[in-house]
Amino acid sequence: MNIDYKALADKYGTPLYMYDFDYIENRYTTLKDAFAGKKSLINYAVKANSNLSVIAHLAKLGAGADCVSIGEVKRALTAGVDKYKIIFSGVGKRDDEIREALEQDILLLNLESEAEMKRVEMVAKELGKEARISIRVNPNIDPQTHPYISTGLHENKFGVEIDMAKRMYIYANKSEFLNPVGIHFHIGSQLTKIEPIRESCMIVADLVRSLKAIKIDIKFFDVGGGIGVVYDDEVTIPAEVYTQAIFEATKGLDVTLLCEPGRYMVANAGAFFTKVLYEKVNDGKRFVIVDGAMNDLIRPSLYNAYHKIEAVLKEGEKTPADVVGPVCESGDFFGKNVPLPPLEHNDLIVVHSAGAYGFTMASNYNTRAKAAEVALQGGKDRLIRQRETYEDQVRLELEYLEK
Amino acid sequence: MNIDYKALADKYGTPLYMYDFDYIENRYTTLKDAFAGKKSLINYAVKANSNLSVIAHLAKLGAGADCVSIGEVKRALTAGVDKYKIIFSGVGKRDDEIREALEQDILLLNLESEAEMKRVEMVAKELGKEARISIRVNPNIDPQTHPYISTGLHENKFGVEIDMAKRMYIYANKSEFLNPVGIHFHIGSQLTKIEPIRESCMIVADLVRSLKAIKIDIKFFDVGGGIGVVYDDEVTIPAEVYTQAIFEATKGLDVTLLCEPGRYMVANAGAFFTKVLYEKVNDGKRFVIVDGAMNDLIRPSLYNAYHKIEAVLKEGEKTPADVVGPVCESGDFFGKNVPLPPLEHNDLIVVHSAGAYGFTMASNYNTRAKAAEVALQGGKDRLIRQRETYEDQVRLELEYLEK
Ligand SMILES: Cc1ncc(COP(=O)(O)O)c(C=O)c1O
Ligand SMILES: Cc1ncc(COP(=O)(O)O)c(C=O)c1O
Repeated sequence: MNIDYKALADKYGTPLYMYDFDYIENRYTTLKDAFAGKKSLINYAVKANSNLSVIAHLAKLGAGADCVSIGEVKRALTAGVDKYKIIFSGVGKRDDEIREALEQDILLLNLESEAEMKRVEMVAKELGKEARISIRVNPNIDPQTHPYISTGLHENKFGVEIDMAKRMYIYANKSEFLNPVGIHFHIGSQLTKIEPIRESCMIVADLVRSLKAIKIDIKFFDVGGGIGVVYDDEVTIPAEVYTQAIFEATKGLDVTLLCEPGRYMVANAGAFFTKVLYEKVNDGKRFVIVDGAMNDLIRPSLYNAYHKIEAVLKEGEKTPADVVGPVCESGDFFGKNVPLPPLEHNDLIVVHSAGAYGFTMASNYNTRAKAAEVALQGGKDRLIRQRETYEDQVRLELEYLEK
Repeated sequence: MNIDYKALADKYGTPLYMYDFDYIENRYTTLKDAFAGKKSLINYAVKANSNLSVIAHLAKLGAGADCVSIGEVKRALTAGVDKYKIIFSGVGKRDDEIREALEQDILLLNLESEAEMKRVEMVAKELGKEARISIRVNPNIDPQTHPYISTGLHENKFGVEIDMAKRMYIYANKSEFLNPVGIHFHIGSQLTKIEPIRESCMIVADLVRSLKAIKIDIKFFDVGGGIGVVYDDEVTIPAEVYTQAIFEATKGLDVTLLCEPGRYMVANAGAFFTKVLYEKVNDGKRFVIVDGAMNDLIRPSLYNAYHKIEAVLKEGEKTPADVVGPVCESGDFFGKNVPLPPLEHNDLIVVHSAGAYGFTMASNYNTRAKAAEVALQGGKDRLIRQRETYEDQVRLELEYLEK
């Protein structure tokens, strides 16, 4: 990436999210190529970055969408994702969400509990439809990640145990209104080790074999998302290593391979731009106060996540500083003890790897407007989401104000 | 509070925020009465709950507003708060925010660094105005709270040390464009001990005396916010104990006493309503999956904050359950091991004490719409913010979509 950060910040203002669409294309192509020779579908995990233009960009490349709410399904449809490439996952779906997903005739609903299956069956019956479903299985493999993003062990809300899954498949297979076409697992996010993925694939592939033996014909083998990316100095899993592990585990099975990468596609395509307001020293500790805040990018506060932070076009001896926002919380920071040169008002700071779980988690805390979003493609930049205004923020409450 | 939760949930849908305006009035009056006999102003900390109707309700009772962004200042003005009762605090103010605050002629700008003071002076000069300011002093007292909400010790971004404050006051007093009229401190949130407050008041009052001695006439003594509330079984500070500590420390000083309670006013006025989607047991662990999620109320995920959770109108033996939302994160929970009776689809759950730092921190993560907000007053309920729609969420990006 050779990006004129300064020009972009001047043109669109700060705080600002920028996404490099060429990078996203490159990531998509790399992963898709690694699946070459097999039936496969990459279902981009919309939750990572749900800007309509980002989804549309991936859709044009051929990607499907992994959605976790009817809102995300609508985004995918609005952005031009083919309905047969959309899957709807998540532990808790409301009846109206299930109904709409069935009416939209998307590829499948991914189920995470017996109770959910019964409700999907009920809604499908009401609509006189057969619901294509898959079941999220919990292979109980330790993904070796941050406790907040690990999801593959028992004792968490996700998926169902193998035995339960079997019972559910048998039930679904008999039901007039359910058609069990897929199987699914997702053991965690920011995975950097192939072993847990390989082991999970093996366990789940075995389950598929035993289901096929009783004439339950699983067509979609969905390995979830979670491929890790480089935030700092992580050693990540090469695309071919990833797909080879999947190929090996599913050898001999006639299935379409699905995966749901989010972070992998967009994290390092994105950067968050923020300007220095003031420098300040408290009791010997250096603080750089910037115009972005935790409401814009909450990952450091929420997960203590690391983001590489750089000052643009500034020279000088670097000393450690906490980069903090204007929000009235001690947890409002982007980085601690970041080596930075001396900075002045209006200097530009770039927070890297902000393309995933950045804007999507933004709030209006402290009545701060959500940032603008910009795409870079083929050397051209364009706005893909307008900066919010005060008026936008009070739009849904103003008419109820009785003065 | 004797509230028909069920009727409200049926009328407005879930997830839903409800605020008891009578309770807020009671809190305001209790605190205001405890200041009786002294010049005082209660500046409601808008960040806690910035719904326009909530601010307007407090404004009608006589409250001022403590704001941390120009957006919050605009909310206060829109809601009818008298401009001379509005203060603008926060560690990082942009030039345009400073300009607008000066143009609006609000009571004062509260400064948190020397660099900020210089920028306020510069902007005031450009406007040919004199900026009324106060300075946030760091009394360096341990407030004995959660590290994320403690702010009164050095090694954090807030305020300035006593020595620095003195230098700033002397500078401001000489400046043609600055008028140092106030002093401010805020040692943390959810304070349940009076001692740290008393000690801080003493330290800051001493500083005021030494400033008066050099003819810097401080008129506003602002003790910040932070009065704790009962979430669980906390023993909190009675209003009179609080004000007596302030009175004692400021004895003999001719100042108007300001305070900035947020949580105290609204936390226990509020409840968050959510409906059960499914029950689920994973590896012996019970999960209740509800239609609200961390995007609606992030305090449990972000601070591991406790909220009392109850099932409405349900009987039966209680067993521990994790109450979790549909968001695809292990951190998406409202409570862990909550004793709850057996629950079914559509049963109503109330998350208590959700009036402060609830809706204001809400996001659209997972393309989930922000909840509706409802006020209860004199036995009547009314909508004070509409539920968001999918269209609301894509409004600022749809026109940029190139399919
Ligand atoms: C089921 C499922 N699929 C895909 C993803 C995307 O994960 P990542 O962005 O790490 O690839 C998640 C993340 O939470 C998930 O829960
Ligand atoms: C300066 C200042 N004043 C007031 C408040 C309000 O605090 P509380 O809601 O705990 O009263 C805060 C909270 O962060 C603050 O930082």
